[in-house]
Amino acid sequence: MTTHWHQDAAAVVTLTFDVDAETPVLAQGRRYAGHASTMSHQAYGPDVGLPRILGILDDLGVPATFFVPGWVAEHRPGLAASIAERGHEVAHHSYSHRPATSMTPAEERADFERALAVFADQGIEIAGHRAAMWEASWRTTDLVAEHGLRYDSSLMGDDRPYRIAAIPGDIVELPVHWSLDDWEQYAFLPEPHVGSVIESPAKVLELWRAELDGMRRYRCLFNLCAHPFLSGRPGRAEALRRFIEYALACGDVRFARCREVAEAAAVDQDLPTRRPRPPDAGPDVYPG
Amino acid sequence: MTTHWHQDAAAVVTLTFDVDAETPVLAQGRRYAGHASTMSHQAYGPDVGLPRILGILDDLGVPATFFVPGWVAEHRPGLAASIAERGHEVAHHSYSHRPATSMTPAEERADFERALAVFADQGIEIAGHRAAMWEASWRTTDLVAEHGLRYDSSLMGDDRPYRIAAIPGDIVELPVHWSLDDWEQYAFLPEPHVGSVIESPAKVLELWRAELDGMRRYRCLFNLCAHPFLSGRPGRAEALRRFIEYALACGDVRFARCREVAEAAAVDQDLPTRRPRPPDAGPDVYPG
Amino acid sequence: MTTHWHQDAAAVVTLTFDVDAETPVLAQGRRYAGHASTMSHQAYGPDVGLPRILGILDDLGVPATFFVPGWVAEHRPGLAASIAERGHEVAHHSYSHRPATSMTPAEERADFERALAVFADQGIEIAGHRAAMWEASWRTTDLVAEHGLRYDSSLMGDDRPYRIAAIPGDIVELPVHWSLDDWEQYAFLPEPHVGSVIESPAKVLELWRAELDGMRRYRCLFNLCAHPFLSGRPGRAEALRRFIEYALACGDVRFARCREVAEAAAVDQDLPTRRPRPPDAGPDVYPG
Amino acid sequence: MTTHWHQDAAAVVTLTFDVDAETPVLAQGRRYAGHASTMSHQAYGPDVGLPRILGILDDLGVPATFFVPGWVAEHRPGLAASIAERGHEVAHHSYSHRPATSMTPAEERADFERALAVFADQGIEIAGHRAAMWEASWRTTDLVAEHGLRYDSSLMGDDRPYRIAAIPGDIVELPVHWSLDDWEQYAFLPEPHVGSVIESPAKVLELWRAELDGMRRYRCLFNLCAHPFLSGRPGRAEALRRFIEYALACGDVRFARCREVAEAAAVDQDLPTRRPRPPDAGPDVYPG
Repeated sequence: MTTHWHQDAAAVVTLTFDVDAETPVLAQGRRYAGHASTMSHQAYGPDVGLPRILGILDDLGVPATFFVPGWVAEHRPGLAASIAERGHEVAHHSYSHRPATSMTPAEERADFERALAVFADQGIEIAGHRAAMWEASWRTTDLVAEHGLRYDSSLMGDDRPYRIAAIPGDIVELPVHWSLDDWEQYAFLPEPHVGSVIESPAKVLELWRAELDGMRRYRCLFNLCAHPFLSGRPGRAEALRRFIEYALACGDVRFARCREVAEAAAVDQDLPTRRPRPPDAGPDVYPG
Repeated sequence: MTTHWHQDAAAVVTLTFDVDAETPVLAQGRRYAGHASTMSHQAYGPDVGLPRILGILDDLGVPATFFVPGWVAEHRPGLAASIAERGHEVAHHSYSHRPATSMTPAEERADFERALAVFADQGIEIAGHRAAMWEASWRTTDLVAEHGLRYDSSLMGDDRPYRIAAIPGDIVELPVHWSLDDWEQYAFLPEPHVGSVIESPAKVLELWRAELDGMRRYRCLFNLCAHPFLSGRPGRAEALRRFIEYALACGDVRFARCREVAEAAAVDQDLPTRRPRPPDAGPDVYPG
Repeated sequence: MTTHWHQDAAAVVTLTFDVDAETPVLAQGRRYAGHASTMSHQAYGPDVGLPRILGILDDLGVPATFFVPGWVAEHRPGLAASIAERGHEVAHHSYSHRPATSMTPAEERADFERALAVFADQGIEIAGHRAAMWEASWRTTDLVAEHGLRYDSSLMGDDRPYRIAAIPGDIVELPVHWSLDDWEQYAFLPEPHVGSVIESPAKVLELWRAELDGMRRYRCLFNLCAHPFLSGRPGRAEALRRFIEYALACGDVRFARCREVAEAAAVDQDLPTRRPRPPDAGPDVYPG
Repeated sequence: MTTHWHQDAAAVVTLTFDVDAETPVLAQGRRYAGHASTMSHQAYGPDVGLPRILGILDDLGVPATFFVPGWVAEHRPGLAASIAERGHEVAHHSYSHRPATSMTPAEERADFERALAVFADQGIEIAGHRAAMWEASWRTTDLVAEHGLRYDSSLMGDDRPYRIAAIPGDIVELPVHWSLDDWEQYAFLPEPHVGSVIESPAKVLELWRAELDGMRRYRCLFNLCAHPFLSGRPGRAEALRRFIEYALACGDVRFARCREVAEAAAVDQDLPTRRPRPPDAGPDVYPG
């Protein structure tokens, strides 16, 4: 009986969706609430993209994890429950989607706990966290551990799970990477300025397949991050569908929710434990 | 007898062309009027690109909709009529191409009505509107409804038509999206800075086909937005021609003018009605 | 006996090379003269790229036109003559490569005439001009006509030659376009910031072929603009070679120097005459 | 017996890896040390990417050169030795990764010598240097020569090795180029802002192969620059592996460490000697 995090699969796929809705735009300035076109562009995510993606997951019978900002769960009351009812995991994605690196310690804590309160109110059990904008501070993993969550998914120190020796205790890190994020491929907004190029879904599918093939050689965690307001568009949803079909056809790839990977990784003694700490960068060498 | 907006087609294509000419550049600063090369780059649109595109539409026998800023119609007196005479629809695309989100309510109203006056003077009947830069304010759809237009085409809240409950009455929204806009693929200017990469028409054709195929699965509105100063270039015009030929060959795609889609959508009870309103973004959560 | 500018070819190709060397970087600030890596990047153009390109043109037996800033001709005394001796045309590309739109009328005139003086000193006969950065002012074509040159190649108002009714007399415009410039495809420098993406020569070859094919349908001028410091690199030189081979294999494409096209266009009564003038952009509509 | 730098190969490949770790980010501001996600993104290079790349080099039996900032060697004490023990070359890549063009002469000298001191302490013999950010000053090659190094690899004045007549004596330049750097293809960070587009490894492989094929025609130095934090990712490592396999299969390509190429180039009388000096850019022509 195996005790490895990967359960002898060549690679493990965690399909994750960040249900950001309006939050990444509002985090750049409340004034953008007045931009009707931009707000509708973001609302498309929960309104149209999310049900479409849930349908694809149903069609193909694969589980997924949805990272939801507390503000989104609060302003769309049935949303988190509707995801959980389909058998998927709902996880913590900050309250406001403002980056932790832009907040004071007290602000980061308040934002973190406000999201937990929303999910508690809604009866949604939370096991893991992802920092907004993938901009964790060095305090973030301590907050995750302190509040009893099992994993974080915001760092990039590996392409396999690893343990983090946070001060309140160990958690598991399920690392992300920009190259497995649909944002860099698809996002475009003129104001606030987001993105320079809108890539073809064919290119994105090629990129994802190449990464999965590489990961199957090295037994990695393919931690895909997609956004309903981006990958929910018809042509992109087809690319997502084809990627899942490709991974299923590989025959050696396992699909799992993040919490399941985290539980297995927590007890896999072959995985390293890291103590994240800031590099020793003295002002004599690095000003500013 | 069907009453659906799509008339049982798998997808509906509205070919739309924004005949912007110099306006998007002048909207970034009147000083650019002194840039002779840039002005000639924009004038290419009505002078060379537009007749070429009209020729392709004639060759292939498909109808289209041309969104024309009032300033352009005014400064090139015969332009709007020459489009209408070919059997295509002419629609409202602001007067100045300055974004509504940068204007006061009075300024937005004045710009909106000034364009209507130009079209009225020229005897061009207008049924719909598209906001400059796809930067509608929350007042925009009310202006559209107040002035008796049937549809707007500036929001992104769906990929099928939907009704908007504007204060003066319902209108139809024919949603757009950045991924079906040729601007993000082709536009390049050094000053004002527009665009970072000039894509190959082969990539754009691949992107459009992929989106159409996805839309045929989900029965959507393929609301293409092209610009004569961009897609009128020879190699890009070929890609446009090939896209239309591809869609025609699908056999299940319907081509229509925007006003026809809007009329059908206005009475299709299967479509949702939305009340666009700004999100409730408090200053405690979102500064700025 | 044909009198058309195209001489019955489906398309005419003018291969043009802007031998900019250090000038576009210095035009962004004299301080960059202190950046040794950047200066070597630019010097590669005349030192390595130019002889390589001349070799390809010899191999394939096609003529070309080289636009040389006066500063470059002056600082590398034998350069312009070595191009002319190979049977190619040398043309005026400003003195300093500073954009005309950033200069006063007196500065533009002085820069224009200083370049002419350099070429006169070197015994290089000049028939045409291209504005630095493709940023002509409305005075530029008057300067071209006043000094007895036959053509300009800086505007984008068409994709076929056209006549310009400049105040001192008519000249021919051989229009350019960003999509036929290798700069947007290949140029990258971190400081001054130039370019975001370095494209593959395979993509550039695809783009050029698509444009040529479109132009063969519409009988256009394929006015390629390449830079020795960019397209002189080995992989890109191969793409240039393949493009020329493709165009030769078409059988209906004519290669010519710019001055030859200009001479034919000057007397082709089927071509339009345009009077470039700034659009009437009032401060009430367009601030700034 | 050949005395040519290329030893009769059609092209020579120097695989070089810049083991930058956190330094390029810290060089943009010490405050980024507080960004945990970003720091983990950079630490991935030495922790995960580097061993993976060393494994590929072992698998395929090719030598490489690793440019290591002194700060990185100092903060990860065994790193440089572990590279040298595998038979690869370790070379000088500044101490701090701050660009020389941003430093005073005294600062540049101090940074240069501090790195040499770290390598001397660790018993690592250094033969060559590469400027941080490829932003050498005009003093840089003099520093290289003064300290007895044999080569620099920061300039772009050719695509074959050349000699530089530095004041303290001749050194060899092994030129680099942006198109053979994986940074422009793969790097993406939101803050500090790095990169706009994440390319597919398939595109990068196509680009590298095209350049190698062009270089085989012209007998050049294919001086690849990759970064463990970028090309160490699974899908990209596969592209690197495939590129090496392709080059090996060509049959006419030689792989070498930089110091070997420099030694051969130092005595190849067919190579040019250049005296890098700033262009004569007067303030009357180029302000700023």
